[in-house]
Amino acid sequence: MKVVELRGFGLENLAVAERPAPKPGIGQVLLKMRAWSLNYRDLMVVKGQYNPKLKFPFVPLSDGVGEVAEVGAGVTRVKPGQRVAGTFMQGWIAGDLTEAKAKTGLGGGPEGVLAEQVVLDADGVTTVPEHLTDEEAATLPCAALTAWNALVTHGNVTAGDTVLVQGTGGVSLFALQFARLHGAKVIATSSSDQKLERVKSLGAAEGINYKQEPEWGEKARTLSGLGVDHVVEVGGAGTLAQSLRGVRVGGTISLIGVLSGVGQANPLPILMKQVRLQGIFVGSREMFEAMNRAVALHRLRPVVDRVFGFSEIRPALEHMQQGAHFGKICLRWT
Amino acid sequence: MKVVELRGFGLENLAVAERPAPKPGIGQVLLKMRAWSLNYRDLMVVKGQYNPKLKFPFVPLSDGVGEVAEVGAGVTRVKPGQRVAGTFMQGWIAGDLTEAKAKTGLGGGPEGVLAEQVVLDADGVTTVPEHLTDEEAATLPCAALTAWNALVTHGNVTAGDTVLVQGTGGVSLFALQFARLHGAKVIATSSSDQKLERVKSLGAAEGINYKQEPEWGEKARTLSGLGVDHVVEVGGAGTLAQSLRGVRVGGTISLIGVLSGVGQANPLPILMKQVRLQGIFVGSREMFEAMNRAVALHRLRPVVDRVFGFSEIRPALEHMQQGAHFGKICLRWT
Amino acid sequence: MKVVELRGFGLENLAVAERPAPKPGIGQVLLKMRAWSLNYRDLMVVKGQYNPKLKFPFVPLSDGVGEVAEVGAGVTRVKPGQRVAGTFMQGWIAGDLTEAKAKTGLGGGPEGVLAEQVVLDADGVTTVPEHLTDEEAATLPCAALTAWNALVTHGNVTAGDTVLVQGTGGVSLFALQFARLHGAKVIATSSSDQKLERVKSLGAAEGINYKQEPEWGEKARTLSGLGVDHVVEVGGAGTLAQSLRGVRVGGTISLIGVLSGVGQANPLPILMKQVRLQGIFVGSREMFEAMNRAVALHRLRPVVDRVFGFSEIRPALEHMQQGAHFGKICLRWT
Amino acid sequence: MKVVELRGFGLENLAVAERPAPKPGIGQVLLKMRAWSLNYRDLMVVKGQYNPKLKFPFVPLSDGVGEVAEVGAGVTRVKPGQRVAGTFMQGWIAGDLTEAKAKTGLGGGPEGVLAEQVVLDADGVTTVPEHLTDEEAATLPCAALTAWNALVTHGNVTAGDTVLVQGTGGVSLFALQFARLHGAKVIATSSSDQKLERVKSLGAAEGINYKQEPEWGEKARTLSGLGVDHVVEVGGAGTLAQSLRGVRVGGTISLIGVLSGVGQANPLPILMKQVRLQGIFVGSREMFEAMNRAVALHRLRPVVDRVFGFSEIRPALEHMQQGAHFGKICLRWT
Repeated sequence: MKVVELRGFGLENLAVAERPAPKPGIGQVLLKMRAWSLNYRDLMVVKGQYNPKLKFPFVPLSDGVGEVAEVGAGVTRVKPGQRVAGTFMQGWIAGDLTEAKAKTGLGGGPEGVLAEQVVLDADGVTTVPEHLTDEEAATLPCAALTAWNALVTHGNVTAGDTVLVQGTGGVSLFALQFARLHGAKVIATSSSDQKLERVKSLGAAEGINYKQEPEWGEKARTLSGLGVDHVVEVGGAGTLAQSLRGVRVGGTISLIGVLSGVGQANPLPILMKQVRLQGIFVGSREMFEAMNRAVALHRLRPVVDRVFGFSEIRPALEHMQQGAHFGKICLRWT
Repeated sequence: MKVVELRGFGLENLAVAERPAPKPGIGQVLLKMRAWSLNYRDLMVVKGQYNPKLKFPFVPLSDGVGEVAEVGAGVTRVKPGQRVAGTFMQGWIAGDLTEAKAKTGLGGGPEGVLAEQVVLDADGVTTVPEHLTDEEAATLPCAALTAWNALVTHGNVTAGDTVLVQGTGGVSLFALQFARLHGAKVIATSSSDQKLERVKSLGAAEGINYKQEPEWGEKARTLSGLGVDHVVEVGGAGTLAQSLRGVRVGGTISLIGVLSGVGQANPLPILMKQVRLQGIFVGSREMFEAMNRAVALHRLRPVVDRVFGFSEIRPALEHMQQGAHFGKICLRWT
Repeated sequence: MKVVELRGFGLENLAVAERPAPKPGIGQVLLKMRAWSLNYRDLMVVKGQYNPKLKFPFVPLSDGVGEVAEVGAGVTRVKPGQRVAGTFMQGWIAGDLTEAKAKTGLGGGPEGVLAEQVVLDADGVTTVPEHLTDEEAATLPCAALTAWNALVTHGNVTAGDTVLVQGTGGVSLFALQFARLHGAKVIATSSSDQKLERVKSLGAAEGINYKQEPEWGEKARTLSGLGVDHVVEVGGAGTLAQSLRGVRVGGTISLIGVLSGVGQANPLPILMKQVRLQGIFVGSREMFEAMNRAVALHRLRPVVDRVFGFSEIRPALEHMQQGAHFGKICLRWT
Repeated sequence: MKVVELRGFGLENLAVAERPAPKPGIGQVLLKMRAWSLNYRDLMVVKGQYNPKLKFPFVPLSDGVGEVAEVGAGVTRVKPGQRVAGTFMQGWIAGDLTEAKAKTGLGGGPEGVLAEQVVLDADGVTTVPEHLTDEEAATLPCAALTAWNALVTHGNVTAGDTVLVQGTGGVSLFALQFARLHGAKVIATSSSDQKLERVKSLGAAEGINYKQEPEWGEKARTLSGLGVDHVVEVGGAGTLAQSLRGVRVGGTISLIGVLSGVGQANPLPILMKQVRLQGIFVGSREMFEAMNRAVALHRLRPVVDRVFGFSEIRPALEHMQQGAHFGKICLRWT
């Protein structure tokens, strides 16, 4: 079967290779893969910025959707023919995150899913909403679940709240959509007025062009009255300082990414405004299932920027690196 | 000024009377009243089923909206000209309910607000969303806030959840609306197919005619898959037993009313399904303000069944007693 | 190997039998059992009051401790030689209770553990604190975990709180001990002054003889000032009505048992006092592990009433039925 | 009456002055002061590091205890003769912190309490546990309540948890005591082995000399097994980076002070360990009352380092500045 291997750090070291078809062991399932989505983490992994101890050759990517082709001994949760996504952390089924569970993230330490066939734990997959295309479904395991965990599981977003999302990457657009599902008002930032128009068409009430408004935190604060209730902080130069400016007293900042770093923020406002800065690291399978229920009920459609072919992983990652995308970048088997 | 007095238990003992115009004391405000709404509790009060120790003559009703006419010494929170509603419990500003706060419910022990002019604590009023008529605004203090407290503050309703509401009284319709605001799916019950059509037009996904389906709890369970996540239990003969049938393992039943009693329910399912049965007694002013923010953002409109005049309190209560209403019954000053 | 079988409902239908030694399958472990403890549920099971559809012969009992003798394919969590307890619900590892998880309770639907050797899921066992004897450790899976879930996981008991426990059965004494660990004040009830002396020596601040004080709920209310913060309701004739009398506005009643029924309680106080009536059905393995950590840190010792031999299950259950015990009734292999 | 005035930034600008005796207005109380305690914030205020816009002359200090000498019109909560403490934020009675409430902190913007007589809001005082001396009681409003809010209200500390406290200042010692009250295990740091002996005698299980162990975060992690559950972060050079090292996956760091800054911490571990970094800004009056209940029940005694006279505010602050104290520094009227 075909597989994409990283043979050393750097985009140039990605190559399509052949490996023997895997067999599902006890409690495992074999998936015939159909689609994948990229996360910024995948780019960091490939460039050696995520896990410097990676062993080569290494199959990248955490997010993929496929059809169950075969189940191993003792498996009753799923059956052949079902369309499922793998969970980001194979070991985080339910409950709180632990160190042991955190080490099971696909495509970061354990190998990922960018292969024709993949073996996963039967407990580490979940069916996906039927109305979604394969590519749309492939956007759920990391980006969507991170936004859900931030705003819903941990953030308890409520109708009437104001949520600030940064930029137009996958997590930010899912945060916008989930905030809207719960009746919250969304303020979005971008460096492009054109993208701000698009986020408004997705339901954002306000857009701030952070190039034109370097003090966008203050602007968000003003737009929201007493400060925003939740910030979904994806990171970038100096973003945390602005987020602390924008958030209300007693508000929450979900730290879900660090992209190019969040800059050196003075922690004093965390104390003086009694802010909760909550790290978010994707989520459990039970959260995934709760999210899927909401996605299915509302027939919510993830925003897909562009779909590449399986073997086009390198141009796909380069596309991500350019940062001009709006929503999720996906791959498709054929 | 004019005031409605209850001079003994019974609808026939309600009468319009004259009293001297009141003056706001220290920390108080004087409201010139414009509209009121009725709750089932008001009917119980009048009939002597709520507080047998009531002192006559007694001014009934908890819910009213008026204009601030004058403020007493030391008042800075509100100013003359503002349109405000009184809070149900004058002493419950924020935090958890306590026995002392619970004793400050208007129109139950302390006199109520069915008068031309009313003096309230400055801390016991809140401005109301501008898009609402006076009658609509008058529906918020008890019924709307009870539904908000049940589903949002205590119930943490989330997109994708299923909520079961009973009948078409004020709390049930607000629960429907607030559940929808948060992306939940609503199943409603009624004895009338015509009313079920109306709740569907308000956003309910399913309606169950409990006359035709005496096992409506089981029906709700089936419609929801694994059982409903939240039940807003308003009470009635045998309703709790059905609610326990319909609720999922680990679900919540908010007990917000007892109407004609909830019947004798076997408590075993509470244990075996690890159900949370949560009593809800209206809510605090801070909850009221959070609710208003959501109502204003979504320009949500309360469902008003019928509007009577100030002096028509008796026919208004009789209308409620007949139980054929859909939504809130209101009164208007002129 | 030896096993106790129930061959029909009734204590007289318990018999020691021989069965072939079991082998651990994929993902399972084989335990050589050392000790067991009884819960009231076991008595109900045997008498046909718990699950009328039981299939005979049936091995009873949910709670047991043994040594891992062998592990099946794919098992890495535990290894031979470790002393472990089975979890009450084999399928409730973490997260919230679901219907599927609730069906996996040992000795209720699935067979129990009163056998010389037992096969359990590798995920369905946990090591137990070293300072405990086998019998003491055997008291943890159901009674201790129920008390922990009620007061700690769901109840969030806090120093300065007042907790009311009923009687001197296993759950009540664990509730007393866990409440004390968290700095709460405990009021205990019993029909015996002698037992009240014993609960005081375990740390209860106050004891109420409910035979002498039929209005013990009112008494508890008075002793606590504004009402007790938590009641651990184990059930009995009319207990819930008294618990509702004793609990403070905004307090919690954990419904953990129904023993001889909790009587017909008027639900009005649940509403008027905004009480949370929380059903508790044992707990998850992650809760069990958190509890073990506390038990180990404080070298807490469960209260064992009496220890019978393996084959003395019938006299042991009869001893429970008489209701004169104080703490847990246990069995030991030899 | 006598009052201490700050007439410009700097310890040398503190002076005892005479002012007319104040009278309680509507809803206010007049206290005859008996004792005070110092917080690091007071030192920052005096040195101009807290509020650069202070208006001189300014009466410093947030924490004081006195006897109610007189009550203003409309006051029923307290009466003359009662011993009370002022609340740190006069406007934070209950519920969540808001910007408006946060602006009411005594001795920071509004004048403080270092005067012979002080007028406060009747809602802004609370009685204190009887077993405490005046100086001990004066330590509660800021330091004790901050520790309580961090560990109990927000942190939900539980028996078996491990709590890391830094140094031997007031908040850290209260955190140690409150953690112990709830059955948690405490690891304490200090630069002095002698002080580590003292914290052990107060109940700390482990002490780390951070001079000898610059990687004390790693050490705490090792001592606790999987990492500590809660860190009470009081700030200092590089402390946050060490705290992030010591905390477990999913753990909480309460940011309660910034002393000399918390250093530049890489925020990546917040994300990767899904840490909650929770700013804590003292607490509400209702939290204060809950804390008092626990303090009274356990007859807990605050640790007082040294007691100065009213007019010795300057040497008292200098003593604090030297940083050699263990527990709270207090002042007494005579």
